[in-house]
Amino acid sequence: MLMTDIIAKKRDGGELSGGEIEFFVRGVTDGSIPDYQTAALLMAIVWRGMNRRETLDLTLAMMRSGDTLDLSGISGVKADKHSTGGVGDKTSLALLPMVAAQGVRMAKMSGRGLGHTGGTLDKLESFPGFSSALTHEQFLSQVERVGFAIAGQTADLDPADKKLYALRDVTGTVQSIPLIVSSIMSKKLAAGADVIVLDVKTGSGAFMKTEADARELAREMVETGRLAGRRTVACITDMDQPLGNAVGNALEVREAIALLKGEYGGELRELCLTLGSCILTEAGAAENAAAARAMLERGIADGTALEKFAEFVEAQGGDRRAVFDTSLLPDAPVKLEALSEESGYVQRIDAEGVGLVSMHLGGGRATAESGIDLAVGVVLHKKRGDAVAAGESLATIHARDAASAESAAALLRKAYAIGEGKPGDTPFVKAIIRAED
Amino acid sequence: MLMTDIIAKKRDGGELSGGEIEFFVRGVTDGSIPDYQTAALLMAIVWRGMNRRETLDLTLAMMRSGDTLDLSGISGVKADKHSTGGVGDKTSLALLPMVAAQGVRMAKMSGRGLGHTGGTLDKLESFPGFSSALTHEQFLSQVERVGFAIAGQTADLDPADKKLYALRDVTGTVQSIPLIVSSIMSKKLAAGADVIVLDVKTGSGAFMKTEADARELAREMVETGRLAGRRTVACITDMDQPLGNAVGNALEVREAIALLKGEYGGELRELCLTLGSCILTEAGAAENAAAARAMLERGIADGTALEKFAEFVEAQGGDRRAVFDTSLLPDAPVKLEALSEESGYVQRIDAEGVGLVSMHLGGGRATAESGIDLAVGVVLHKKRGDAVAAGESLATIHARDAASAESAAALLRKAYAIGEGKPGDTPFVKAIIRAED
Repeated sequence: MLMTDIIAKKRDGGELSGGEIEFFVRGVTDGSIPDYQTAALLMAIVWRGMNRRETLDLTLAMMRSGDTLDLSGISGVKADKHSTGGVGDKTSLALLPMVAAQGVRMAKMSGRGLGHTGGTLDKLESFPGFSSALTHEQFLSQVERVGFAIAGQTADLDPADKKLYALRDVTGTVQSIPLIVSSIMSKKLAAGADVIVLDVKTGSGAFMKTEADARELAREMVETGRLAGRRTVACITDMDQPLGNAVGNALEVREAIALLKGEYGGELRELCLTLGSCILTEAGAAENAAAARAMLERGIADGTALEKFAEFVEAQGGDRRAVFDTSLLPDAPVKLEALSEESGYVQRIDAEGVGLVSMHLGGGRATAESGIDLAVGVVLHKKRGDAVAAGESLATIHARDAASAESAAALLRKAYAIGEGKPGDTPFVKAIIRAED
Repeated sequence: MLMTDIIAKKRDGGELSGGEIEFFVRGVTDGSIPDYQTAALLMAIVWRGMNRRETLDLTLAMMRSGDTLDLSGISGVKADKHSTGGVGDKTSLALLPMVAAQGVRMAKMSGRGLGHTGGTLDKLESFPGFSSALTHEQFLSQVERVGFAIAGQTADLDPADKKLYALRDVTGTVQSIPLIVSSIMSKKLAAGADVIVLDVKTGSGAFMKTEADARELAREMVETGRLAGRRTVACITDMDQPLGNAVGNALEVREAIALLKGEYGGELRELCLTLGSCILTEAGAAENAAAARAMLERGIADGTALEKFAEFVEAQGGDRRAVFDTSLLPDAPVKLEALSEESGYVQRIDAEGVGLVSMHLGGGRATAESGIDLAVGVVLHKKRGDAVAAGESLATIHARDAASAESAAALLRKAYAIGEGKPGDTPFVKAIIRAED
């Protein structure tokens, strides 16, 4: 089999066979296919696309490129969750204990990510002593014992995706439904869960700018999961403004804890209840969405979700006291209110603009080697549709020093569009996509 | 400027600026752009194409990537010729002396080529002592003195094309009009001639399988040449069967000599007269095509074209006696007639199949390092439309040994399609494409 023939076939709009896809993924993994041929094929896939069969074969070949986790030794149905990401997305921190408190175990591998804030792993390191470096044995045993674990993805899991993603990032081949589907789903399949719930963001702050694109991506991921034998469901949710109020590592941990304490509502709570209901019903732990939602709300009200979170933090070496006393979490020395210069209603908040504020303060990572400041970030006091008066605070800036706080406040003001008239409500959860049969 | 932005722009169907194209070509030439990014952009160009302005900018940037030849010190109008190539194409060997004998100087850089036979340079090495390794000074002085020279393309000419072509060859990005145009025309522009005549082949043995594709390629090359300030004309000619009768290095030299002696007719002579007429008229050496053709025919009849060829061979170190006594050229020890097993008319001759016979005999080069056998090859006795009886010879195989001759004869028979009824004539010269204004 020749890589040049595979490239030419896809270039001419042909359908790649399972054997051709396997050959390609093996060659990428073992380095026998040079990057320039891989890049040419990736661009041909961006151009010509892949049908569902090809996408499934690519996903499975990538999954098989490295280790796969066998969760069969763990009791009950095991679930996993993935978000396509966005600004202020701390969902996993609250969702996993909420679900685990209801008896459905969750096994999540997570990344560190480049971006406006750290990834879930970075955020969790706000707890002194917390570690995500678990062996597979430690991971499996914690899921069984505590009900959930969040570990760093090991180098042995889906090495093909690591190579392909690095190449896509520098060859303009990120934006392709089959390539996105295979990247996400190969990792989820390798991680072994029975139930996979996907949070597909849409809007200006999301990777998928339009709802139509988000729906297509969700549909393809759900069908790929189904064809691979996993119960898969996707929620399409809004990312036209930051999710919740906090953007920044420890600040997001505080917000997740407030949610688990029942002290925080809004769209973040709605998102956790929606995703959690999908998991509980798919796992067979609840009759229907209403029953699942009631279970999850009860877990917040009676403190079991919060206690589950503390158990988890402790199991991974973190200080569980910080769950109950958040003053033990990293705290930035400078707080500055970013005051509005206008009066009116918040028409829009540019999510990426708010993300840049966090980045500017040092809360994000520009390259894989960068350090990040866990304490800094921003807490928004006004969201879309809120009334605001000139001189009123839009947000509190949490900074390392006064100079960065001042410039961050100026950047933050630019992210807000304030105008007359209250903008219409848009639904936060736009759709739930289940498998077609 | 970022290469990723350039890739994304073309991927999304945008038009690259002159600056972006210059950045790309410089980066390819100096190695600062990694091959995987180049490969991604090449595939995006195959996908989205390039308009005439982009193609011109790419061609000029490639031309400027290395040395350019200044022919201004040579008297009169200087011409150059390029063929897109095919099986049995020995046109340059006859055309250049025919034109030079009429006082229009020709300066041709040529390659060795991988394929069924060697390139023009290999064929010329059938003359004992012949060398194509001329310095620029030797090349210019020979063009002035003898009227034409054929030299190997130096490494300093169009290094961007060398890198891009090597990468296109292994990334499925050869088939793209702007990439083909820029590859051919950048070299022709760098070689400095005032008049450029292009022989664009079409048919089963050609790179451009359909006449429509050949016309589009010819049109774009002619316009790029015009926009770059050169008088450019293209002929679209048939390559549905091998050109002429001989396929093999020394055998093709013999055929070219026979043509120059007036002993050989057919489509090869027609091609040389057509291309030669284009050159003489574009160079202002003839009033019109009919006058040009008469001049060229007279040059054959009075022996001046043959004498010009001998002068050229001698100037480049070869034995001029072999022009007049072709028994001095390499000769294969084994000759075998490939007999027809059927009776009827030759319906088709698969040009690539005949090429493979030459390759099989050792007349071609599989890799850049392979040696080639100048003596071997095949001389066809039957061409499309000829009547043939079972037991009659289709061709003479010229081989190194009896075993390879036998297997070559079997391969050759497979390249012939013989059937009932004489096939209709198709025109050999299909079109002449001149600049639009």
